[in-house]
Amino acid sequence: MNTHSDLMARRARLLGAKAPLFYDEPLHIVRGEGVWLYDAAGRPYLDVYNNVPLVGHSQPDVVAALARQAATLNVHTRYLHETILDYGERLVARLDPSLSMVLFVCTGSEAVDQALRIARLHTGGEGVICTNLTYHGNTTAVDEVSPLFYGGVPRSERVRAIPFPDSYRPLGGLAGEALADAYVAEVDRAIAGFAENGVGFAGMVLCPVFANEGLPDVPRGFMQGAVAHVRAAGGLFIADEVQAGFGRTGRMWGYELAGVVPDIVTMGKPMGNGHPLAAVVARADLIEEFRDRVMYFNTFGGNPVSCAVGNAVLDVLDRERLVDNAREVGSYVRAGLARLQQRHTMIGDIRGHGLWIGVELVRDRATKAPATEESNRAINLMKERGILMGRIGQFDNVLKMRPPLPFSRANADLLLATLDDVLGLL
Amino acid sequence: MNTHSDLMARRARLLGAKAPLFYDEPLHIVRGEGVWLYDAAGRPYLDVYNNVPLVGHSQPDVVAALARQAATLNVHTRYLHETILDYGERLVARLDPSLSMVLFVCTGSEAVDQALRIARLHTGGEGVICTNLTYHGNTTAVDEVSPLFYGGVPRSERVRAIPFPDSYRPLGGLAGEALADAYVAEVDRAIAGFAENGVGFAGMVLCPVFANEGLPDVPRGFMQGAVAHVRAAGGLFIADEVQAGFGRTGRMWGYELAGVVPDIVTMGKPMGNGHPLAAVVARADLIEEFRDRVMYFNTFGGNPVSCAVGNAVLDVLDRERLVDNAREVGSYVRAGLARLQQRHTMIGDIRGHGLWIGVELVRDRATKAPATEESNRAINLMKERGILMGRIGQFDNVLKMRPPLPFSRANADLLLATLDDVLGLL
Repeated sequence: MNTHSDLMARRARLLGAKAPLFYDEPLHIVRGEGVWLYDAAGRPYLDVYNNVPLVGHSQPDVVAALARQAATLNVHTRYLHETILDYGERLVARLDPSLSMVLFVCTGSEAVDQALRIARLHTGGEGVICTNLTYHGNTTAVDEVSPLFYGGVPRSERVRAIPFPDSYRPLGGLAGEALADAYVAEVDRAIAGFAENGVGFAGMVLCPVFANEGLPDVPRGFMQGAVAHVRAAGGLFIADEVQAGFGRTGRMWGYELAGVVPDIVTMGKPMGNGHPLAAVVARADLIEEFRDRVMYFNTFGGNPVSCAVGNAVLDVLDRERLVDNAREVGSYVRAGLARLQQRHTMIGDIRGHGLWIGVELVRDRATKAPATEESNRAINLMKERGILMGRIGQFDNVLKMRPPLPFSRANADLLLATLDDVLGLL
Repeated sequence: MNTHSDLMARRARLLGAKAPLFYDEPLHIVRGEGVWLYDAAGRPYLDVYNNVPLVGHSQPDVVAALARQAATLNVHTRYLHETILDYGERLVARLDPSLSMVLFVCTGSEAVDQALRIARLHTGGEGVICTNLTYHGNTTAVDEVSPLFYGGVPRSERVRAIPFPDSYRPLGGLAGEALADAYVAEVDRAIAGFAENGVGFAGMVLCPVFANEGLPDVPRGFMQGAVAHVRAAGGLFIADEVQAGFGRTGRMWGYELAGVVPDIVTMGKPMGNGHPLAAVVARADLIEEFRDRVMYFNTFGGNPVSCAVGNAVLDVLDRERLVDNAREVGSYVRAGLARLQQRHTMIGDIRGHGLWIGVELVRDRATKAPATEESNRAINLMKERGILMGRIGQFDNVLKMRPPLPFSRANADLLLATLDDVLGLL
């Protein structure tokens, strides 16, 4: 048997000492099933962290579809194949009718990169607005719109960051309509900044639930106002649904919650339940224009195996009513968290939608001083008790919960009882 | 049954009218096995085109490894897992000892994009040299080093293109050492151009066999000279092995043929036999520096399923001695092509290494006038006769042959006999 320290040493040599690992004592996971992960010693962990295995770890129907198609044919999209058409048509049927054409890729980073290319080509501008604490992926261009790891400040002339819309620590201490207007004014300021610098405007990319920003309650009216101002300035709105999409929020797409229809949607992570499948779905005129002016081809994107997997994921999502389950069990968890909040003053705020839940820990509810260290202890203590979660937000003090969607009320009860214990220890 | 025209109409609506398809009459492929593909009517086609299914279409051991690991666990790399270590160690053991650390990604485009990030971060410069007729992938940054589809002219200040090294249509009509020197002088000119424009120099990215340039015979000494001058100017050399790597040329890596050791290697396409698996392998100090300064994570890259697939591909490659087979059968094909050349004046040049073969068709051997239209007819006529190949090169007149590596002498005989017939019809 390999010990943890052997594995860690091999890992440092092969992948680099800074290759990221979770937890103070990393986990050695060897098996997954449904909402459960198992370590090398056979110990089960309730997975309240992983959003990629949307319909459950090692879901048998998805695995069967993967194996069946891989044993039959796996080629690229320059031959005709029905599965890509069946899947693509089924996928776009779930979006607004204006979003009717698809560009298949393999990862969320690729999806956002192509979305930026499409928007820049269409507008002739380069300038893109994002939020200060977002992360959209890791290609050179997508890294530019991901200032989360760079102190909130974009390092490219062609990107401007707005403060993310937040009701818990609101801009200027405002509330209600005035707060929404203040954030929309930041969008206007960014647009004006591009104009002053002679940078043409291409548009705005946002995660509709602001997942990496800590899942804030978005001031009502902000999204509509921001998108309207972007369009009035000739820009396009890209909704990055890599985290919000595929039903996690209790709706199929995050933009439905936000109440706006994007020009371009990017999707990835849960789309293939772990298989590298991602896509850009956009207005037909935008994709046609891109195809017309750019020789775009993706070797693996939209291959028959990926599309067979995508179809199987939608089958399970529908058959098990997992979008409804996300909404129902998510509400149940949030109600339970509200009860915990009465006993634990550290719970400053409970946020999110469906099974995408954030719990902000603070040292003082009045000052909202972030309980960053306590949050780290909390997730490590939860892990020791067999429950996996993460943390996020500008102060790394928001407990991040986004389990596979077949998460039951019984799973929720275990989560809540364990969190109750752990919060008592902090 | 769907007719071709039904599929074409659905495809145009869903993917765009310009989404690329092969052949004047596209193929509807439904099954693959070994070196054979089958269309919807059950007709077999000998696959002399597809380099991605390296160890054969639907290779049973690879499919079994994929299915087994997908049924067990598929998570990201922030938990410990042995398969990523087993595979990664086995992979880097096949490269020069100086190339010892790996960054797993999902596609060749992602690999080249990260390689550019690593080189730019290390050098502090942005300027990158590529050839005029190369294509390295499709992200925003990689598109910049892919002038093939933009008339050979990079559209970014931070990229400069050199004419690709060619012995068939040599620069200035030169030959031998003088020709190699002339191409190296183009590298010097590009480096000087960056300096004049105040663009810091980051390095050079080349496919070691210049696959997209048409697989030219590289003037001896060019690669050593070019790489030495790049390093002398403080730049790094990135070898893009997405097409050359994994044994196709009869050696494991294209850089072995080229006789230079890169600082960074990118790999993709055949690595997972169709599964989206790709990587950057580089000097440990470069990856450590990148990891240290950038929060890099790839959701799907290096997951247990991808690594199990990668291991299975190496198993088959070794067990079936496919690298040797590529060298042996490749030589056999080239010898057969040389015989055809005696009968068919249209064959201007026969090039390549192992089972990566280019045949340049010309209307006149003296003027070397490209037989572009004839090349298009040739690949369509070959397809009608049940053999799949493509074409490439600056005039689209180089027949492109790169079958799955279990390509036998019997397969080669069929290829040669059919090509003999088809060339007689042009």
